[in-house]
Amino acid sequence: MKATESDFHAWMGGVQTRMESTLARLLPQPQVAPARLHQAMRYAVLEGGKRVRPLLAFAAGELAGAAAERLEIAAAAVELVHAYSLAHDDLPCMDDDVLRRGKPTVHVQYGEATALLAGDALQSLAFQLLAEHRLADDARAQLEMVRALAAAAGSRGMAGGQQIDLEATGTALSVPALEFMHIHKTGALIRAAVALGAACGSLPDGERQALDRYAKAVGLAFQVVDDILDAEASTATLGKTAGKDSRQGKPTYVSAMGIARARELAETLRAQAQSALQGCGSRARRLAALADFIVLRKF
Amino acid sequence: MKATESDFHAWMGGVQTRMESTLARLLPQPQVAPARLHQAMRYAVLEGGKRVRPLLAFAAGELAGAAAERLEIAAAAVELVHAYSLAHDDLPCMDDDVLRRGKPTVHVQYGEATALLAGDALQSLAFQLLAEHRLADDARAQLEMVRALAAAAGSRGMAGGQQIDLEATGTALSVPALEFMHIHKTGALIRAAVALGAACGSLPDGERQALDRYAKAVGLAFQVVDDILDAEASTATLGKTAGKDSRQGKPTYVSAMGIARARELAETLRAQAQSALQGCGSRARRLAALADFIVLRKF
Repeated sequence: MKATESDFHAWMGGVQTRMESTLARLLPQPQVAPARLHQAMRYAVLEGGKRVRPLLAFAAGELAGAAAERLEIAAAAVELVHAYSLAHDDLPCMDDDVLRRGKPTVHVQYGEATALLAGDALQSLAFQLLAEHRLADDARAQLEMVRALAAAAGSRGMAGGQQIDLEATGTALSVPALEFMHIHKTGALIRAAVALGAACGSLPDGERQALDRYAKAVGLAFQVVDDILDAEASTATLGKTAGKDSRQGKPTYVSAMGIARARELAETLRAQAQSALQGCGSRARRLAALADFIVLRKF
Repeated sequence: MKATESDFHAWMGGVQTRMESTLARLLPQPQVAPARLHQAMRYAVLEGGKRVRPLLAFAAGELAGAAAERLEIAAAAVELVHAYSLAHDDLPCMDDDVLRRGKPTVHVQYGEATALLAGDALQSLAFQLLAEHRLADDARAQLEMVRALAAAAGSRGMAGGQQIDLEATGTALSVPALEFMHIHKTGALIRAAVALGAACGSLPDGERQALDRYAKAVGLAFQVVDDILDAEASTATLGKTAGKDSRQGKPTYVSAMGIARARELAETLRAQAQSALQGCGSRARRLAALADFIVLRKF
């Protein structure tokens, strides 16, 4: 491993460890009533996941000179929205999945009704966190963070993307239609992670826009790589049911363009992400390394 | 009908009409993609309900000298949270109900997955509205509005109350345990409606606290009356399935204390609500009339 890679992995591990303890602290404690709901919320969030969105928020925050005490809150809010969407997405009326991050899904462990409520309450908690901690010097800027996360989560963001996904199941989508779906389903929240991380500090408008171009490319690359891994990897490596997309008749980049062209697309998007960072210099090194990590990951 | 009653009914009709057009304007338009999701969101919210929470927000706002342009946004946010909770509560894994506000429930009309996503997206939209419109002169005060609604919706508010409800089904609850459930399940959001309405204007701390005592009493009275109506009224009058609570083994005030004592309790709570308003004078007349309306309603 090269020195820069080892440095990046140390940084990544540090953020992941910090996020685990931040989330464990911010989530309602498991013995507080209603205890079963709080246990389900913690189960849905803790001990799992690569924390890609928090990593992006921290990397963007580093570029913007943001304090880690702010970043951990903003990153937690984004991660709670992500975790709630997984708990709902796994429900029998949605993807009906039983395995996630190597563990039984929330409804398998706690029942459907509690999984539904846990997801609902995680979404509320995300906005509560963004509102009750001081994350920006200017309160109007902090309201804009709330707005950005809400828009990214809502019907013209993540939830809208899940609806498009729902309606697309069993059909063949063109590559532009697939892209439209993923820009909503995963892209919106990834862009919000980067934007919220940056908003914890301060950035000139030009760099803010460059970061958004970076986030768009990384968000799409993340999904393309997910599709490739789902087609190739084993359930054990992924920690979730592999090969499921094609069995469920979900359109994927692999089904739409074949695995070789999907790999080329991931590479093109990685180059786009790197190129967006060019004006930012070495302050963007974590973002640059994350784009590589997201495209080159094996799980 | 007395003159004051007729005046109150005119005011109420005015707020209800205004809210219908506000909600129709703020919800995503039905032809915007993903159209089916947006149609389901509108179906879950529009043309239905007494708009009790918006009425409370407007009445509290009148006391606090708030502009109607702010109140309609704050009231809409609270109503969207309420509507999302109904869409989720009616799902087969929860109460499994097919009729709401005289119409098929959202999942009967649009399918479970879309009903789930519509509820999720309505919650996001509520916070988006609170963040993107100017609702208070001081942005920190507006962040506090976001925090208050999120806390009221979350695991230590409404969603927590639904979890307690879930676990109580089929058991006999004591009256204090019933009260604990309802303070969360319906009370928290009703208190938030009053608090957000007041926060659109300005009030001395003493009146703010008096309003909160009012809201606590009204919230509980609302639930006691709901239980009485569920036991007595017909499905046609209610616009939702009547007698359902007892058939589902849900503990109610009627099952816990009998209908006569439940009526007495509703009357006591109405008196408590009125007494909380005593120091506010005639500026609180809408709130006073609403407390009467909520307890004396027949549907």
